[in-house]
Amino acid sequence: MLSESDLKTALNRISPFIHRTPVLTSAFFDKHFDANIFFKCENFQKCGAFKARGAINAVLKLSTHAAVNGVATHSSGNHAAALARAARIRGIDAFIVMPEDAPKTKIDAVKSYGGRITFCKPGIENRELSLQSVLKKTGAAFIPPYNHLDVIEGQASCGVELMEQVPDLDYIIAPVGGGGLLSGIALAVREITYTSKTRPRVVGAEPLQANDAYLSIKSGTRLTHLKPNTIADGLRTTLGPLTFEIIKDNTHAIFCSTEEQIIRYMRLVWERMKIIIEPSCSVPLGVIESQKELFRGKRVGVVLTGGNVDLNRLPWL
Amino acid sequence: MLSESDLKTALNRISPFIHRTPVLTSAFFDKHFDANIFFKCENFQKCGAFKARGAINAVLKLSTHAAVNGVATHSSGNHAAALARAARIRGIDAFIVMPEDAPKTKIDAVKSYGGRITFCKPGIENRELSLQSVLKKTGAAFIPPYNHLDVIEGQASCGVELMEQVPDLDYIIAPVGGGGLLSGIALAVREITYTSKTRPRVVGAEPLQANDAYLSIKSGTRLTHLKPNTIADGLRTTLGPLTFEIIKDNTHAIFCSTEEQIIRYMRLVWERMKIIIEPSCSVPLGVIESQKELFRGKRVGVVLTGGNVDLNRLPWL
Repeated sequence: MLSESDLKTALNRISPFIHRTPVLTSAFFDKHFDANIFFKCENFQKCGAFKARGAINAVLKLSTHAAVNGVATHSSGNHAAALARAARIRGIDAFIVMPEDAPKTKIDAVKSYGGRITFCKPGIENRELSLQSVLKKTGAAFIPPYNHLDVIEGQASCGVELMEQVPDLDYIIAPVGGGGLLSGIALAVREITYTSKTRPRVVGAEPLQANDAYLSIKSGTRLTHLKPNTIADGLRTTLGPLTFEIIKDNTHAIFCSTEEQIIRYMRLVWERMKIIIEPSCSVPLGVIESQKELFRGKRVGVVLTGGNVDLNRLPWL
Repeated sequence: MLSESDLKTALNRISPFIHRTPVLTSAFFDKHFDANIFFKCENFQKCGAFKARGAINAVLKLSTHAAVNGVATHSSGNHAAALARAARIRGIDAFIVMPEDAPKTKIDAVKSYGGRITFCKPGIENRELSLQSVLKKTGAAFIPPYNHLDVIEGQASCGVELMEQVPDLDYIIAPVGGGGLLSGIALAVREITYTSKTRPRVVGAEPLQANDAYLSIKSGTRLTHLKPNTIADGLRTTLGPLTFEIIKDNTHAIFCSTEEQIIRYMRLVWERMKIIIEPSCSVPLGVIESQKELFRGKRVGVVLTGGNVDLNRLPWL
């Protein structure tokens, strides 16, 4: 589906436009979990989230013909800003459908990159209807937030970098919403030549209250009817057909975190590491807590997916 | 007072026990100020503040005889935790006098390092009285928060590192409370062999509502009667006799920030850089805003002094 050469070419393609984000460690968390945790800090990424990777990769890969009327998408936030930014870099328009209840900081981010916003009611059906109308009117190319091979190839670069930065990882844990990041990392781990004899196991981390990926993988059928209800606003989406297939075949497991764990570990990262992470980022830490025996003594990569938080509405206040 | 050799020896002495903190840059702030800003991230330091440097330097320099009954201090926060940690590293007791209204996170930090706390009423007189009684009872060695050459020598290491990390700085701006950090940086800039032909100018940044250093330097007399009233809880202290003399002779200027600037730039750093800083850290950014012409086009080092914030009480909420 994607070869080592594809993945390395993609990283080269997007490198001028993204940060090679640092990997941080924390004596506190290593002791807390009795493991070596390596935090891949996509909260420091352009646009404040890993989504900058997939969006710029997909936009740069469009043919001149396909790009001429701009690009469009629906997104609750980070992909929207990332696509608006990617379009501006390429010099084309970005038409963004956003739910009315998207965080204000994410709406402002899209505006700051010159994205043209159409607001819709929350819910995937409303977003898709609104997007259809935008596509018809503009002739723009649809760049979906996750269920698209060029987007996945872009997100994979996060895994490629992490494997270059940290040798001998036993596990890589990434949050799963629509599954673009988890798919990309799973393919990177499968394809990229690595330092250690065994490849790291790829684990998805999902809010218990938005556990469609967990249930879909368990049942072998992609479930799309579940109603997510989680503080982790980046993970309220369901797997797409493509990400479902990739994740089904290439990940070790999906584990879930409670809302209490998500909020508690989000705060603990702020307090102890002095970095700002979105609630999505702490889902893997809840998983490590719940599966303590599995991760004890292991070298575990954790992707901190983004840092875009509405500072007027902190979950613990 | 302190030679290049003293300063380098101190950095070597304390290096095993502190982080060489990273220097971050931000495309947003460079554009915002039309300058190159280099953020020295002491918010990532051990204990979450630069105070770890001075405390461990002073404790390690104590003779066996002087250290036998432990160490003591009064502090509203970061020095307290830093001293408790330094004492634990050396294996001696730390007796800490703290005002009752110190932030809970800072009290917890002292406890987590095994420091023995005596609470007192707020105000420097109460703190000093309470400390006298503790010193008499315990025989501990007093390690003051800033007015002490070994402490200043330790804080200077922050400036030594910054000059090693960033060539050709035009300015270094540090917040000034008691003046330990600013004194240390001023001496480092005076003594250390640097890459550029001209040494950076050292600027102090002070809250307008706690501007004793500004007024003291202006008048040539150390003023101690002023009542600070600032959100920047780390900067509510006044200069000591030693820090006053060093700052008077070795800094370019002291400029002030309003409370509105402190809060606005604190939040902007959180939003744009995704790192957690205390209110003290944004005082230099208010100064750059107010003195925009002075800093335009310059290479400016800014010390982010700490990241210990009570996450239940954010200043903009």
